[in-house]
Amino acid sequence: MEDWITSLQTDTPQKGFELAIVLAQKGVMYTQPSAEVRAELRKVYSNNPNSLIMASHVVANYFQTVAAANNYWK
Amino acid sequence: MEDWITSLQTDTPQKGFELAIVLAQKGVMYTQPSAEVRAELRKVYSNNPNSLIMASHVVANYFQTVAAANNYWK
Amino acid sequence: MEDWITSLQTDTPQKGFELAIVLAQKGVMYTQPSAEVRAELRKVYSNNPNSLIMASHVVANYFQTVAAANNYWK
Amino acid sequence: MEDWITSLQTDTPQKGFELAIVLAQKGVMYTQPSAEVRAELRKVYSNNPNSLIMASHVVANYFQTVAAANNYWK
Amino acid sequence: MEDWITSLQTDTPQKGFELAIVLAQKGVMYTQPSAEVRAELRKVYSNNPNSLIMASHVVANYFQTVAAANNYWK
Amino acid sequence: MEDWITSLQTDTPQKGFELAIVLAQKGVMYTQPSAEVRAELRKVYSNNPNSLIMASHVVANYFQTVAAANNYWK
Repeated sequence: MEDWITSLQTDTPQKGFELAIVLAQKGVMYTQPSAEVRAELRKVYSNNPNSLIMASHVVANYFQTVAAANNYWK
Repeated sequence: MEDWITSLQTDTPQKGFELAIVLAQKGVMYTQPSAEVRAELRKVYSNNPNSLIMASHVVANYFQTVAAANNYWK
Repeated sequence: MEDWITSLQTDTPQKGFELAIVLAQKGVMYTQPSAEVRAELRKVYSNNPNSLIMASHVVANYFQTVAAANNYWK
Repeated sequence: MEDWITSLQTDTPQKGFELAIVLAQKGVMYTQPSAEVRAELRKVYSNNPNSLIMASHVVANYFQTVAAANNYWK
Repeated sequence: MEDWITSLQTDTPQKGFELAIVLAQKGVMYTQPSAEVRAELRKVYSNNPNSLIMASHVVANYFQTVAAANNYWK
Repeated sequence: MEDWITSLQTDTPQKGFELAIVLAQKGVMYTQPSAEVRAELRKVYSNNPNSLIMASHVVANYFQTVAAANNYWK
């Protein structure tokens, strides 16, 4: 896997949130490397309420880590 | 995505809770950008007990982060 | 939404647990504002084992936050 | 609800684990007060693999809180 | 229940991981004391992808606690 | 089980993320030791949206631990 993350530091909470989204997506990528398969699955989960809530929960977990890493951008 | 969050600091636990709700919703928005689709899905999950519990769990996770960011409003 | 929480501080772990229950319920209220719908859904999830376990998990997550906010009532 | 918890402090990790089990059960009790209903539901979830795993996850979350409250019994 | 845990301290991360597995299993044992029932259920969940992922998530939660208890074996 | 982890320390967040993936996989391995069964199950969960999201959530939990262990690579 090429270098895709070198630091957890971000300037703002929004950039931190967007990094959490990338981390959540990478968790899927390492498990399902095929972009084609992921694109097909995305059509399913992005139109399923429970899947969307589950995906939001993964982002919340990563955001918790990124926020702590940035001392909550105080 | 336009700027929607610049700080995790809030004056009160209630404002912190409401920020956690926004963060949970943004997690869905970044995954499903269509407001129309989200409105349809909302009709489903807001009338499904397990979906509502799952959504409340995502808010709990973000609230944990926001509360720590505000030193629990001590 | 009227003021429903002004502090995370509670005198005892039990009061902290009961605050965690309120927080979990508010997570549902903000998502499904209709008390009537929530009453109907309550009949379903309060008689479903997995729903009850999931609800207990949300309370656990909030209790973790409230306990930390009260320095574990040491 | 009568007083059922006055402190998170326990002498040992095992006592802490058993307190986490009580906390997980109380989360269900506050949501489903009927002991009769809970007894019926227990027959279901205690014989369902996913329910048992979910219940173990709730205990893990409470144990995390109790362990931190006891400074990991160091 | 006989004494099965007296400390969260372990010499290595691997021993800590294996303690997390024991803790996750105990969470099931306290809820379903019958070894016979658990053996039957194990045949089901150890051959079900989602159950295995859920079980791995419980271990992750306990490992988080054990790792903090051991100051991450620094 | 042979030695597979001796430290939580990694040089970079990416190495830490990849360690989190190993930890998540080990959680499955200890529960289902058969590589053959796991390979069959992988075909199922790596093509199921909810399973992939659940797997990503387990990685997020381990990453939270590994990131804290490395003081967020500051």
